[in-house]
Amino acid sequence: MINKEQSRFLGIDIGGVNLKYSDENGRGKIIYFPMWKNFRQLKDRLEEIREKTNPEVVGVVITAELSDAFENKAEGINFISKAAIDAFERVYFLSIDGELSNSIDDPLRYSASNWVASVLFLRERYDNFLFVDIGSTTLDLIPVKNKVLAAKTDFERMKREELIYIGALRTPVCCLFPEYRKLHLAAELFAIVADAFILTRDISQNEYTVETPDGRGRSREECLSRLARMFCADVDEIGESFIIEFAHEIKRKMVKMISETIDRHLSDYNLKTVIGCGVGEFLIEEAMKEVKGMRGMKGMQTEHQAEYISLRRIYGKVSDLFPSFAMANLVANLVAGLPKEDQE
Amino acid sequence: MINKEQSRFLGIDIGGVNLKYSDENGRGKIIYFPMWKNFRQLKDRLEEIREKTNPEVVGVVITAELSDAFENKAEGINFISKAAIDAFERVYFLSIDGELSNSIDDPLRYSASNWVASVLFLRERYDNFLFVDIGSTTLDLIPVKNKVLAAKTDFERMKREELIYIGALRTPVCCLFPEYRKLHLAAELFAIVADAFILTRDISQNEYTVETPDGRGRSREECLSRLARMFCADVDEIGESFIIEFAHEIKRKMVKMISETIDRHLSDYNLKTVIGCGVGEFLIEEAMKEVKGMRGMKGMQTEHQAEYISLRRIYGKVSDLFPSFAMANLVANLVAGLPKEDQE
Repeated sequence: MINKEQSRFLGIDIGGVNLKYSDENGRGKIIYFPMWKNFRQLKDRLEEIREKTNPEVVGVVITAELSDAFENKAEGINFISKAAIDAFERVYFLSIDGELSNSIDDPLRYSASNWVASVLFLRERYDNFLFVDIGSTTLDLIPVKNKVLAAKTDFERMKREELIYIGALRTPVCCLFPEYRKLHLAAELFAIVADAFILTRDISQNEYTVETPDGRGRSREECLSRLARMFCADVDEIGESFIIEFAHEIKRKMVKMISETIDRHLSDYNLKTVIGCGVGEFLIEEAMKEVKGMRGMKGMQTEHQAEYISLRRIYGKVSDLFPSFAMANLVANLVAGLPKEDQE
Repeated sequence: MINKEQSRFLGIDIGGVNLKYSDENGRGKIIYFPMWKNFRQLKDRLEEIREKTNPEVVGVVITAELSDAFENKAEGINFISKAAIDAFERVYFLSIDGELSNSIDDPLRYSASNWVASVLFLRERYDNFLFVDIGSTTLDLIPVKNKVLAAKTDFERMKREELIYIGALRTPVCCLFPEYRKLHLAAELFAIVADAFILTRDISQNEYTVETPDGRGRSREECLSRLARMFCADVDEIGESFIIEFAHEIKRKMVKMISETIDRHLSDYNLKTVIGCGVGEFLIEEAMKEVKGMRGMKGMQTEHQAEYISLRRIYGKVSDLFPSFAMANLVANLVAGLPKEDQE
């Protein structure tokens, strides 16, 4: 008998920074888990998740193999999949080709497949679209037109701007602004974009879920002080308003990168629909205003303008951990399609 | 009686990354001391230096107040100067105006004064020059013409390109190359420029004195793998030669930044002499080739071309810790100039 409080299916997205899990109904959680420091505790942490959720069947997608905890991606996939197999009774892994398998043959086929889960889930509901997912650290842009058009490795996706390694929380400010107003800013991990988004009020302190660069708190004052350090200065030396302007420039720059990339994909594949999710969805929403604006300026008709579908509006907070939610549904479907005797 | 093995004077440069100390004869050492993690052990470490060197008079310059171990620079200066006063019997601090004092009145006057020590020392030997010191993390460019022309705070110097926050070891590659060949590289601290300089053979593994970003070793293979991760790739995926080319591009970009900045200062102040030092002196030497080349291309006479003075050639390895060596000499001079009864 199935306990109504508990779901049979669980999806887990094992990333380099977070463990995200969800059942097929979207009840889930993000656990900050910096793989580069904590990888030895992965199995224990997965077992805690098992005890808490007690799933029958688990679906796992992996992106943490890129973490420098591992010498190379194959080592990463092997380590992580073993931890999952040890922690759960019945576990499936999703390959980059969209296949679910309960064992790992060629580890690299299971590298960076979390976006595949999201896209497979969405394809059952939408036809042609650009899927955009911005997490704490990275941005995926996956064009789907009749079939999935993205490349299959991180490096190939990077080349095609289907993967941009910027995110809504952890991106070091010095990577976005080596120069700002003709100043060479400090090439040092003094501040991350989450510090800016506290000042622009796009995120709350609770949403600043990653470590602060200096180990201090997440208050407005502490964020100001981290951003001031990018100018080798105390807050008083350069003034609050200068720093707040800088925070808005950080946001503008990210929004511009995102909108330009969305625009390029829409035009390359002649797509009209963008589906967005992730903890940084506020950036996608901002970017979409500019995408539409740009199209408008080119004199295109209103009916050709891009349409934006927010997964947060449809599914709620699980949009922040969408691949795990999608994965729970994929394994649920898989099990439903199995012969009766294999379902339990 | 003075022990011939021991000097009476010691200079210490307390930076955010290293403790550098030297006596007035250039016998010294660089101790890797990441202030942001280890600041609580500062006094102990200074006491170890005292026991080892047994100096009578110590001169201290401070740049570590910018470390995010401290809430602001004043807190940093106060903490560090207190540790020095507790650790040594007789200690002088150098202010940004070039004054030596055995107590700290206005802490900000003692912020970021290590280049002042070097320049005061050099002014006794050279007239007009551009002093260029590139350490593990930062680059100072100080114009001297009849008087010291640099600004007096880090932020003001940053504006005037007298401080550029790039160095020969710790600079994150993602700050230099947010984009490379139209790729957005990973905005992540996967690799630092020291990884590139191992591959270009500009530094040895022993000279890679700072932590590696992934905590692994400093071998060629390990550096290759860190740089590959900037492309979200294993080494095999992109190939060694691609990575080695990238390492050379990193060097070229830094050399270009340095040469352009040197050129600007030489031309702004009509200076002809560059005096260089620091663990990254190889970059200054490379940059000088381009400075001369640029001047040559503008059709200037040979006698107007910039002259380069390498402090490493003159003083040997102490060039890597020049401010501490200079500081030891400054306190030696100070004591020599005091009335007899105050000298001992």
